[in-house]
Amino acid sequence: MSETPCILALNAGSSSLKFAVFEMNTALGRVLSGSVDRIGSTASTFVSRTRTGQPTEQAVASAPNHEAALQFVLEQLGATSAVIGAIGHRVVHGGPTYTISQKVDSAMILELRRIGAFDPAHLSSELALMDVVSKKFPLIPQFACFDTAFHSTLPRVARILAIPRRYEAKGARRYGFHGISYQYMMHELARIDAQRVNGRVILAHLGNGASMAAVHHTQSVDTTMALTPAAGLVMSTRSGDVDPGLSGFLARSEGMTPEAFDHMVNSESGLLGISETSADMRDLLALEDEDIRAAEAVALFCYQAKKCVGAYAVALGGLETIVFAGGIGENAPPVRARICEGLQFLGVEIDALRNAANATVISSNESRVMVRIMHTDEEMMIARSVQRECATGRDA
Amino acid sequence: MSETPCILALNAGSSSLKFAVFEMNTALGRVLSGSVDRIGSTASTFVSRTRTGQPTEQAVASAPNHEAALQFVLEQLGATSAVIGAIGHRVVHGGPTYTISQKVDSAMILELRRIGAFDPAHLSSELALMDVVSKKFPLIPQFACFDTAFHSTLPRVARILAIPRRYEAKGARRYGFHGISYQYMMHELARIDAQRVNGRVILAHLGNGASMAAVHHTQSVDTTMALTPAAGLVMSTRSGDVDPGLSGFLARSEGMTPEAFDHMVNSESGLLGISETSADMRDLLALEDEDIRAAEAVALFCYQAKKCVGAYAVALGGLETIVFAGGIGENAPPVRARICEGLQFLGVEIDALRNAANATVISSNESRVMVRIMHTDEEMMIARSVQRECATGRDA
Repeated sequence: MSETPCILALNAGSSSLKFAVFEMNTALGRVLSGSVDRIGSTASTFVSRTRTGQPTEQAVASAPNHEAALQFVLEQLGATSAVIGAIGHRVVHGGPTYTISQKVDSAMILELRRIGAFDPAHLSSELALMDVVSKKFPLIPQFACFDTAFHSTLPRVARILAIPRRYEAKGARRYGFHGISYQYMMHELARIDAQRVNGRVILAHLGNGASMAAVHHTQSVDTTMALTPAAGLVMSTRSGDVDPGLSGFLARSEGMTPEAFDHMVNSESGLLGISETSADMRDLLALEDEDIRAAEAVALFCYQAKKCVGAYAVALGGLETIVFAGGIGENAPPVRARICEGLQFLGVEIDALRNAANATVISSNESRVMVRIMHTDEEMMIARSVQRECATGRDA
Repeated sequence: MSETPCILALNAGSSSLKFAVFEMNTALGRVLSGSVDRIGSTASTFVSRTRTGQPTEQAVASAPNHEAALQFVLEQLGATSAVIGAIGHRVVHGGPTYTISQKVDSAMILELRRIGAFDPAHLSSELALMDVVSKKFPLIPQFACFDTAFHSTLPRVARILAIPRRYEAKGARRYGFHGISYQYMMHELARIDAQRVNGRVILAHLGNGASMAAVHHTQSVDTTMALTPAAGLVMSTRSGDVDPGLSGFLARSEGMTPEAFDHMVNSESGLLGISETSADMRDLLALEDEDIRAAEAVALFCYQAKKCVGAYAVALGGLETIVFAGGIGENAPPVRARICEGLQFLGVEIDALRNAANATVISSNESRVMVRIMHTDEEMMIARSVQRECATGRDA
């Protein structure tokens, strides 16, 4: 293991904790990475990989919550010679205050507690992780990287919600999420296509959570998630945008409370709700020939994503690049094919063989719009932000 | 006045009752029309027009509710020599059962009461009107024309909501509204452009309620309103589609009940909510240079409508015709201009002079997409449906 101080990047999902350890140098070499999955279930799993990408550890972890998962990660880390010099957290929601990555301090902790109503499920586990870390390593600086930060450039027309204006002062507006992933994708695009990176780009992060961003001159000008990560596209268990009359209808006809509605649209809807069998696109693609419910779930996912490409092409006044990322975006050729089907009039033409092979570029040589696949890397982006903040701190 | 039996078409809005009387012959000559407005306020108004379109009556009507408004209309009608032979009602919601216009009978009344939860505000006043009519004219047949009927052709992918499938059996799906207006627009389009009517058409009914429909081969394949007329585009006082997490956020942070949320998204949102001053596009256009809130309301209305054009062009696999109708669609050149701005890459090019003049065709001669304005006429469409149903009844 390395003698160079390292950055620990922590990426907490709703039931997972991904982590990666990077050498704090220009190359940001990844010395260890892994994840604890199924947090909260009786059979949490742990897997870690070394620099070469080989799995080194696979274990059943006892992780009733994110704090326990982190303890487990820190124990594994303790068994290595890695010296942690800084820690970066993915924080889902920055609320109205935080538009760039920054050092965690007591004021930030208070503010994140204050805005808990935005996203209680995620923010509380992220705060718990910061607490564990600050007790265990009181001298190591922690940094928060906000998933909302990339979208701080949203113009007013994409930011305001069509509800009474007084709620905006209380924080009800579009924030957008997946920003760390989008930031990584734009970094990559700048590296590999310096010309198109400044043009009209649609970024599609399609995983368990799914969103799109419309990007012009490298700035986010619109995105599908809004005040919460349940908005926009159809997702694994989230509904995406809904009829505002739905909650009233279900309250009148079913006596559904706001809490139950919130649970339904976040945890029982989307692919799972339509298919009634699985929230996992792989399962549904395997089932769609024999189960109409699976077929409809896949079809709706693709149809809503396709319409969003059209909406964002219009928001951008044209289109030059589409980038697919995320578990579905990177690995599901039929989904990408259906999203891009019939978009010839927008200049999108997919090469079937490239798409089937999950190639880096899946558009044909003749396609006016370049369609790419990227393997997104949120932990790397967190490490880059932490490194930049550490350097800024030293300069100051 | 005419000796020919007449059709009375009744079109109840949330606070208005429009009516028109048509001779029951091929030309469906309009012998009288008018409306009671501001129903429920202390200063309801009544206006009627004769065949030549000149206002004949203007009065302050006492109309605390729709039944009273109808009594007032029937009194005016009684003063003429018109003989009513059939009555047609616009009914906002047909629920899962009614996909074509049909005769009102006791089974329908029961079913419309049963589905009251879909749209309690509208359905209850429509039922009240049917009740008044059947008591006053027990022998005259009444017909219901459903605003949802035009969209009975929606494919599954446009019809299902991304929520648990079990709610579909309870009626929670996309129905779509403004169908009587869309039907009229398609009739007109068939008359004036027999070639394009079978192609890819976007119909935009932009009034106090605003929606769009994507139409292919004369069939509705998608539309913005959904289970309720609050869904889709930004409207005068309705929010359009929202983040499904919004109701939960407002419940947590404000203690907002489902009833209050429903009232907010239906009556306090949209143009009124953003501008804080007016739900009327005319007021906002007049104010937008001096009041940023008015400017933002107009901008958001146009931006969401513009994105919908892009989404529907994709849903249709291309675009050949756009038709604007409704109070805003017919009379607000700046709104149409902003919706169509930057759509050149879709083949849309507006002629500024034609647009400023509210001309029948507002696209340029070079525009690949034909952009039209139509004066929609729901009462005429109701009369046509009633006449067809009466003819069918006689044939049977």
